[in-house]
This record gives sequence, structure tokens and C-alpha cells, in this order.
Amino acid sequence: MNHEPIRDIAHLAHIELLTPKPNESLNFFKELLGMGVVHSEGQSVFLRGWGDQPLYSLKLTEAKQAGLGHVAMRTFSPYALEERALDIEKNGFGLGWTDGDYGHGRSYQFTDADGHNLEIYYEAEKYITPDHLKPGLKNMPAKYAAKGASVTQLDHINLFSSDVDADSLFFRNQLGFKLSEQAITDDGKQTTAWLHVTNKSYDLAISHDKSGGKGRFHHAAFKVESPEMVLRAADVFLDNGIFIEAPPNKHVAGQTMFVYVYEPGGNRIEVCAGGFLIFSPDWETVTWTPEERKKGLAWGTPLPSTFHTYGTPDIANR
Amino acid sequence: MNHEPIRDIAHLAHIELLTPKPNESLNFFKELLGMGVVHSEGQSVFLRGWGDQPLYSLKLTEAKQAGLGHVAMRTFSPYALEERALDIEKNGFGLGWTDGDYGHGRSYQFTDADGHNLEIYYEAEKYITPDHLKPGLKNMPAKYAAKGASVTQLDHINLFSSDVDADSLFFRNQLGFKLSEQAITDDGKQTTAWLHVTNKSYDLAISHDKSGGKGRFHHAAFKVESPEMVLRAADVFLDNGIFIEAPPNKHVAGQTMFVYVYEPGGNRIEVCAGGFLIFSPDWETVTWTPEERKKGLAWGTPLPSTFHTYGTPDIANR
Amino acid sequence: MNHEPIRDIAHLAHIELLTPKPNESLNFFKELLGMGVVHSEGQSVFLRGWGDQPLYSLKLTEAKQAGLGHVAMRTFSPYALEERALDIEKNGFGLGWTDGDYGHGRSYQFTDADGHNLEIYYEAEKYITPDHLKPGLKNMPAKYAAKGASVTQLDHINLFSSDVDADSLFFRNQLGFKLSEQAITDDGKQTTAWLHVTNKSYDLAISHDKSGGKGRFHHAAFKVESPEMVLRAADVFLDNGIFIEAPPNKHVAGQTMFVYVYEPGGNRIEVCAGGFLIFSPDWETVTWTPEERKKGLAWGTPLPSTFHTYGTPDIANR
Amino acid sequence: MNHEPIRDIAHLAHIELLTPKPNESLNFFKELLGMGVVHSEGQSVFLRGWGDQPLYSLKLTEAKQAGLGHVAMRTFSPYALEERALDIEKNGFGLGWTDGDYGHGRSYQFTDADGHNLEIYYEAEKYITPDHLKPGLKNMPAKYAAKGASVTQLDHINLFSSDVDADSLFFRNQLGFKLSEQAITDDGKQTTAWLHVTNKSYDLAISHDKSGGKGRFHHAAFKVESPEMVLRAADVFLDNGIFIEAPPNKHVAGQTMFVYVYEPGGNRIEVCAGGFLIFSPDWETVTWTPEERKKGLAWGTPLPSTFHTYGTPDIANR
Repeated sequence: MNHEPIRDIAHLAHIELLTPKPNESLNFFKELLGMGVVHSEGQSVFLRGWGDQPLYSLKLTEAKQAGLGHVAMRTFSPYALEERALDIEKNGFGLGWTDGDYGHGRSYQFTDADGHNLEIYYEAEKYITPDHLKPGLKNMPAKYAAKGASVTQLDHINLFSSDVDADSLFFRNQLGFKLSEQAITDDGKQTTAWLHVTNKSYDLAISHDKSGGKGRFHHAAFKVESPEMVLRAADVFLDNGIFIEAPPNKHVAGQTMFVYVYEPGGNRIEVCAGGFLIFSPDWETVTWTPEERKKGLAWGTPLPSTFHTYGTPDIANR
Repeated sequence: MNHEPIRDIAHLAHIELLTPKPNESLNFFKELLGMGVVHSEGQSVFLRGWGDQPLYSLKLTEAKQAGLGHVAMRTFSPYALEERALDIEKNGFGLGWTDGDYGHGRSYQFTDADGHNLEIYYEAEKYITPDHLKPGLKNMPAKYAAKGASVTQLDHINLFSSDVDADSLFFRNQLGFKLSEQAITDDGKQTTAWLHVTNKSYDLAISHDKSGGKGRFHHAAFKVESPEMVLRAADVFLDNGIFIEAPPNKHVAGQTMFVYVYEPGGNRIEVCAGGFLIFSPDWETVTWTPEERKKGLAWGTPLPSTFHTYGTPDIANR
Repeated sequence: MNHEPIRDIAHLAHIELLTPKPNESLNFFKELLGMGVVHSEGQSVFLRGWGDQPLYSLKLTEAKQAGLGHVAMRTFSPYALEERALDIEKNGFGLGWTDGDYGHGRSYQFTDADGHNLEIYYEAEKYITPDHLKPGLKNMPAKYAAKGASVTQLDHINLFSSDVDADSLFFRNQLGFKLSEQAITDDGKQTTAWLHVTNKSYDLAISHDKSGGKGRFHHAAFKVESPEMVLRAADVFLDNGIFIEAPPNKHVAGQTMFVYVYEPGGNRIEVCAGGFLIFSPDWETVTWTPEERKKGLAWGTPLPSTFHTYGTPDIANR
Repeated sequence: MNHEPIRDIAHLAHIELLTPKPNESLNFFKELLGMGVVHSEGQSVFLRGWGDQPLYSLKLTEAKQAGLGHVAMRTFSPYALEERALDIEKNGFGLGWTDGDYGHGRSYQFTDADGHNLEIYYEAEKYITPDHLKPGLKNMPAKYAAKGASVTQLDHINLFSSDVDADSLFFRNQLGFKLSEQAITDDGKQTTAWLHVTNKSYDLAISHDKSGGKGRFHHAAFKVESPEMVLRAADVFLDNGIFIEAPPNKHVAGQTMFVYVYEPGGNRIEVCAGGFLIFSPDWETVTWTPEERKKGLAWGTPLPSTFHTYGTPDIANR
């Protein structure tokens, strides 16, 4: 019997977001986050931050309502892809193989315990930097955007779930994520789980959807280079009439600096910076009790209540 | 008739704060703000930030209850001092001349319309940097503190007042302050007035004391070098059990980045950075309506209600 | 006899720069510094930073060679303007009155001791923010640029001079500038003089032109909000092929963080942040000896030798 | 035959530095870097940054001359430790097993191709935070230091080597490091190799020792939270008379912001921030040619020549 941990998933590759306002949403990601368009196809536009290592990190797709299309992860190798697919299929979460999509080869699709669409693949097309975006230093994929919030890259995503325990267990057992931190109820049920496959303290968070919804999306976070740039991002949002749900502050879990907004299509977007990396192979999950969570954010103010109920699609407004 | 504006006050020089917990307060200013002690005398300790141009910016005095001792301003010249004293006396606000205090020569004492103790002087002893604090560059008064929040210097003060209009008029007419910004009620009564004598957008703020108190103190603000350092200050307060009344955010007026805490004696202290300078000689006072003020801080969250009622001495707890 | 100091000049208002490459220079200021165009007329384009309080801070004019057109300062009042004009005329530096230029009323023109063209005026048209640039907070003139280096405003200028002592004396005696810092030779001759009329530690610097030139231009500095933003500016220059003469570092005088580049027309441009303000009315000029200057910049590396010889027009290449 | 990559080393754990001036060196690490002492034993003091996940990251040992004692790495598991030890022994680099040292269990010692002392272990004692250092948020090991440069943790080390190719191959083949970037001569010989086992773009750099020395030490780098904090660190060094070999600037490789100093014992120390993470499983080594390296640092100034010759022990001064 093999007790070695699963180490097949290399990183979060891209996310597909659905939007009922494709033009406004596209303008948000291009002009206010400073992302670049690499491709358009059908009802979808593919975008990347200037520092994204994959070809793109966001597939923005027109749809009747906002929400998550799917989350894609890249495996370490073709072999790791096969291994994960077999295991997931065996456990009954599989949807099946695809021939790939723009920029990547065949992928295996499945859902997590709460029904979010997920996908893994290995073969990926590299980003060929066009001449006008060639950076001064060739170890970067592209020039510093110097536009809007100038986000570097996709950092992490947060799913809303009707059963956080089940969902976080899924990511641990099927995909090899480790639980870095968790918030629990007095009964020991998870209200939020923070999970990672890289040295980042989390690549994925799963929060309890108090609205009773299932398979909804909470937020996607794009990274900037320093806490100071989060403040600049907030200025960009303020000056351009974007709804700021929570002003810059520091999260307790992961200690990342953040600002939360709703993009025009309705999806919650975070711009974040900082936070710690986890190097210890025997990191012990940090558990936050309801008592401890009452203190609010790192510097003492709670997130607005909408943070625990609003997600996309927006059930309340259906 | 002389229409030339009064230009006699050079800058805010120091503030005397009263504390019922002298040791804890002293520890706060020394260890957590990173200020240095230059002198002790009677029940008072005199402190300075590493970048303060006056000999000291804070006189911390033991007292039965927290609050303001007095605010001292320095004039441009001995002549300007005489001129202001004469004018203030003529208008009935004068208390009289003193022989000076530690570090400065004779001063003229008076009160503003709401009864806060004020003082002006010109003659001042220069700070002689002790050898162990000599900076690498001699155009700075001392080494970078590199301790706690490492505040540079006193930046501004905020008085609580039962009648903001009367008080702000006093500072304009008697001391030559200019009104850079104001918040007003629907009836046009000032709820906060921001006033300046330097190029800073405010050296002094006066806020309406909703508790009905008179002559109370709202807060003193110490400056750090950048918005990022305000975040570090918040970390220092978080880690050392200091009550954070309002986490880092950006003020609408002046657009300064701030964090508000209560020092152990009970006085509200702000650590701030940034904000704009005013150079235009015909700057028009910016007026904020109740409607506009409802939006809260720059990035959209209101200050806690205590910000409008808590001051020192703390009337509620008497 | 009036011993009161002259306090007639409120601030540096704008600078006219000449460029033999008008399109490339315009692109630099618009796309890489992030400034906005407010007007075009004849061979000139008028630009402003998003935080500039005057209508514009840069008049960019096509010319055979790079260099300074003129420097304009604004007086505190119409009366102050008359007073300065009379005094300058009396001392033989005057050129005469104009009817004004785009955005400002009648001005008095003159030259300093080294022949740089200067101008003072009071009447000025205010900036009317167009709808698409209206900021979230109305105490700012415009939205945060969020483009390129996103410079806030013109900060200071530096003139090259064949006789720094004579020139700095001119600014002190005729315009009321104060000498905050100076670098001198062993014989006590000024090699650089830093002068201010506002609380900034300098609004103007004058450096010795080792090339033997007269009336040349050294650089203009545009401000960003924090030291961190100077680093971002350097990234913008690096990624866009702009020659960086001196990478980000900290000046000894004024302790401003800087980066120096040549705009495509050849003029040296600085992006700066930080530095201290001077509040003490009896600030004593800080004098740097050749020995002390040998240490280089604050953190120990010298500026390149071109910093002491290159100016515009570029004599060497004529 | 197993083509799976070696993934046995979790992270760089600690470094032992030798110093002929133990008191001055200790003072540097404690007061100027802001590290804390966790233990003293014999001629050694064990120190940690406030964010270090291992019990300590620096063992400072009194010795006749400065230099490297050893570098310690932690494996993912006891099994990984055995596997690495076997493999290294088989290849002839082994020195043998120890019973452990302060804070960790049995370790396997060996040398790299150039003779640097290395060690791997798995069993490690956890840091028990003393009450007075308990942080506000329990997912951090300790309070933010708020003293001196306030370094967070050990970030990476740089070895000097007589044969970079051989040494970097050793780390790849024996320890599973990957080559993220390299600088080469026109003949294709490595002059610097950057290697990583975590998502950081390098945990280890190996540079060619132009002095002809063997097994020498180049530098150890401690991390701060943002580029801005590197500037503050430079201020701390400037104000306290520490020799700054290279002022803050940005590295081409890894794009980390840095400042280099010599600690009083003579060892080169870097304070760094930023830099990118590598997530792509098929990252292609970035190769810098001599032509490209001529451009100097990211923003265009070369490192001083001592950077390529000075190491510890200091051969030149023997």
C-alpha cells in the first residue's frame, strides 16, 4: 500500500467565468485589471495577466447569468494526468475526457462533491510574446502592464459550497491538496477550508454558502506585486465606479492583503498581495474557532455580511 | 485697512497629552511608535519622532484623566509672535505670557472658542543629536528609529468641539489658518473643518463632539513614510494588543492613509501617511455634504460610530 | 527698511520643454508618464499629471534642439506679482510683460543670472475636469491615471548653471527662495544649491555645468505617490526601451527617492517620491563638503559622470 | 528505470555562518536584521527571523575566519531522507550520519562537488513561541519583529564555486533541484546557476569564484515583506555604519529586489523581497549570455566588481 502523498497537480491553470454583460466585464478585466486578450472564440474571450505563466488564466464567456464555468488545473506530467483521471473516475466524480480547448490538449473533466465543474490537463501551448509586449527582461512572459490595477496573474479561487467538509475532503483525497487552515463551527464543521498544492498558503478556498445554494462561485483572486499595489487597485476601482464590497485590509487566513469588488457581470473579484508561503513538510492545519473568527479581519473589522451570502449565480435575485 | 492674509504661524510644534497611566502610555510611545525620550521633568516626559524638526513633539503628562494638556504652535519670527499675542488678547481669548517651558522661550497662552488650551512661541532650543543617534545623512535630525511603527514626526491634531464653525473661525481669524475642506450638515453647519497653515492639506482638524462635551480632544496623528508603513504599524498594534478602533483605510478629506488606535491612557492616536499638499494660492474650500459623507471612507466603509462620540476625557465613563 | 522676507511666490507652476522629436516626446509623457493632454496650439502641446493643481504643468514645444523653453511660477496674489516685477525690473533682469499664454493671464518675463527664461503670473484658469476623468473623490483634480508611471504632478526642476552662487542668490534675492541645502567646493563655491518657496525641501535645484555651458537645463522631476511607485516607474522605462541614466536610489539632499531617464527628445526627466518637508522657520542651510559628497548617493553608489556634464541643449553633440 | 523526478528535499532549513567577531556579528543579526536568539551552545548562537518556519535559520559560530559552516536542508519525510543519503553515499559525496544537533534529529552529512559542507535531516523540533512573542494571529510563528530591517526568514543562499557546472549538476542529480536560470560564458560554461526545489524561482545560487578559491561562501539572503522594506533596510544599514556593497536594485535573475552588505564578521548578507514564483511544470531554463549580462542589473547599473571576487573566507586578506 502506497502512503506517499499524491503530488500530481502542479498549479491552478485558469478559470472560466460566465457573465451576462460580456462587454462590460471584458472592459473591467482589460482596462481596470490591466489584463491582455490572447484569443476570442465563440462567446468566449481568453485573457492573461502580464505575469501569468500559462497562456491564459481567464476564459470569459457570455451566459445568461454570472457564475463559474469551470476551474482548470495543470498536472506535473502526462502520467500524473492519467493517474488522477483513473482515480477520480473510480470514485465516481468523473465526467470524461475532452479533446482540449484553446491552448491546451486533452483534458479530463469532473465535478467536486458540490458540483463545481473542474478539469485537469497536462499538454499546454506556451505563450508567444508578441513584439510590442516583449519585456525588458526575458524571464518575464510580458511587459509590466502599467494599466489599471496591473494584476500580475491569477492567484487563487474560492468556491461556495453547501458542504465544505465534503468538498475540501474531495480536493485532498482526489487531487492531493493539503489543508493549511480551516474555520470551524462549535460542532467542528468546516465553514471555510484553505487548501494548497503549491508553496502558497492556499491555491483554493471553499466557503460555506449560507444561502443554501449549491455549486456556486465565491470569487477569483488576481495578484499584484505588493500590498501598496492593492491600495492603488482600490483607487482604480473607486475612480471608475466599481462597487467595492470590502476595502483593502488583511485576511487572517494566509495573511494576504486584499480588496474585493464585483465585476460588472456580478462575479466577485479580489485583488491580493502578500501572504506567507508554506515550506514545512509537517505544517499543522491551523484551526480557527467561531470565537476567534469573531474578531474579524487581521486589523479588526469584519467583512460585510454579503461576503457570506453573495455568490454567483446570484440566487437572491433570481 | 490690511487685506494681506495673516502669515505668522509656521507650524504645529508640539502637543501635551494627559494620561492616567503614565508608564503604559510612555511604553506605547517609546516601544510601539518608536519615539525617543529627550527629557523628563515633574510628571512629564518629553518625546520626539526621529524626524521631528522641533526638539520634541509630545509632552506626556500624568493626570487624573486622559485628554489634551495644550497645543503649541511656533511663529515665523519674534515679531509674528508679538503681533499674534496682541491680536488674540484684543479679541478676548488671551490667558497671558509665560516664561517658557522645557526647550522653548516665552510663550503666549490662550484658548480657542471651545476652550482648548493653546500656546504660541518663537524662541526654541534646537535638538542636539546624541552620538548614538547620529544619522548617516546629516540633513535628518536623527537615525531612522527602526522600532515599532517608527513614526517620523507629529503630523496633525484633531480637536473635538461643541461648535465647529466658531472654532474653525477662531483659527482662521486669529491664527491665519486656511480652510481646505469642510463637512457640513444640510443646514450648512460644519461637522468637521480641516485647516492648514503649511502646504499640508491640514495641520488641524476640528470635529463636532456629538456627546455634547466641550473642549475635548479627538486625536493626534504621527506620520510614517509611506502607506505601506501604515500597514506595518497596524501589524505592530495587532501583535501587541493595542485596540484598533479603525483599521488602515484612506480618508476622504486630505486622502491620507490612516490607522486609529487608543493608547493605553485612552487618547486616540492616528498613524498616517500620504495625502496631498496644497500649492494653489486660490484653493477653493472643498465642501462635503451629508449625502457625500454617507459613502464612508475613500474605499467605502464607514468609520465606527465611536469616532464621532469618543474623545478624551471620556465623558461616558465619568 | 523692510526686513520681512519676500513671500510672493506660491509655487512652481509649469515648465516649457523643447524637443526635436515632438511625437516621440509626447508619447513618452502621455503613455509612459501617464500624463494627459489639455490643449494643443501651434507647435506646443500642454500636459498635466492627474494630481496637478494648475491647469497644466508641462508645455511641450517642438524645436530644433532639446532644452528649456521657460519656467513659470505663480505668485500668491496680483499684488505680489506687481511687487516682484517691479523689483526684478529695477535690478536689471527684466524682459517685460506679456498678455499671457494658454491658461494664464498677463505674466512678467525675465532671466536669472545664467540666462534661463523665467516667468511669473497670478491669474490662472482652473482645470475643468472632463466627465470621463472625474475622480471618485472631488478633492482631487482628476482620476488616478493608472497608466505607465502614473505621475501625480510636477515636483521640481533643476537648472544647469555656469555660476551656481550667482544664480542661487538671484532666486533668493529676487524671488524669495530659501537655501535649504548646498554642496560646495573646498573654496566654498556652490556646486549645487537646493532652494524652496514651499514646505518641500526644494522646488528648484541649480547645479554647476561642468561642460562650460550657460543657461542649460538639467532636469524636471515629476512626483509619484510613494517610493514603491518609483520602482514601478523604472519597470515601465526598462520595458519600453527608455534609457535609464541612474536607477532608483535615494538622494542625499532632500532624501528623495528617484529614477533618472532621458525622454526621447533628449531632456533628462526624474520620477521622484518621498523626501522631507521643512517646517522650522529657522532651518539652517545644510552644507555638504566635497569629502562628504564623495560617498555618493544615500545608499552609497555615485551618480554616473554624465549627471554632471549632460544637459540640454546637448553641447557635446552640436 | 525510474524517470520520475526526485522530490525529496522540502526546503532550505538553516545555514551555519562562521565569524571571527562573534559579538559584533550577533549584534548585527539581532539589532539590525531584527532576528531573535533561540539558543546558545558552545561557540554558537542559534537565531530565527520572526516568520521562519523552522526553529532557527541561522547558526552563528565563532571561528578564526568568516565563511560557511554548513547548509542544512529538510526532506519531505524520513523515507526521503534515507533515499537521498543512500544515493549520495553511492555517488561518493557522503561524509556520514550524525546524531543531530540542537533542534533536529539525525542528519546525513556530505559535500557538494566544490567541497561545501551540506546536511539533510527530517526530524525537527517545532518552535514553541514564548508568551511575550505570541503574535496577534496564530498562523504566524511569532510577532512581527518591528526592529531594524525586521527580516521575516531565510530566503536563499549563494555559494561561490570553482566549477559552477559541476556544482549545479550535483544539486540537480543528488538533491532534485531544478535549474530555473543560468548565466553562461561564450563557451557555454555556467558563471551562475539559479536552482530551486520550492516554487520560489531560486532557493540556491552558485556563482563562479573568479579569485580561484574553492568551497567559499558568497552570501545568505533574508527576506522582508515588500520592496519598500528593502529600502528601509538600506536606511538601517546606512544609519548604523554597515558597509553597503550594492544599494537597493532589482536582480535580473529572479527579479528580486535586494541590498547587499557585509556583516561585521565579513560575510556578505542580502536583504531581499519580491521575485517571481515558478508554477509551470515545464519551465524552460532561462539562459543569459555574456552580452545580455553586460547590461547590468534590471535597471541598468552593474554590481560592483567585488561581487565577483569577494567571498568568505576572504582569500585576498589571508
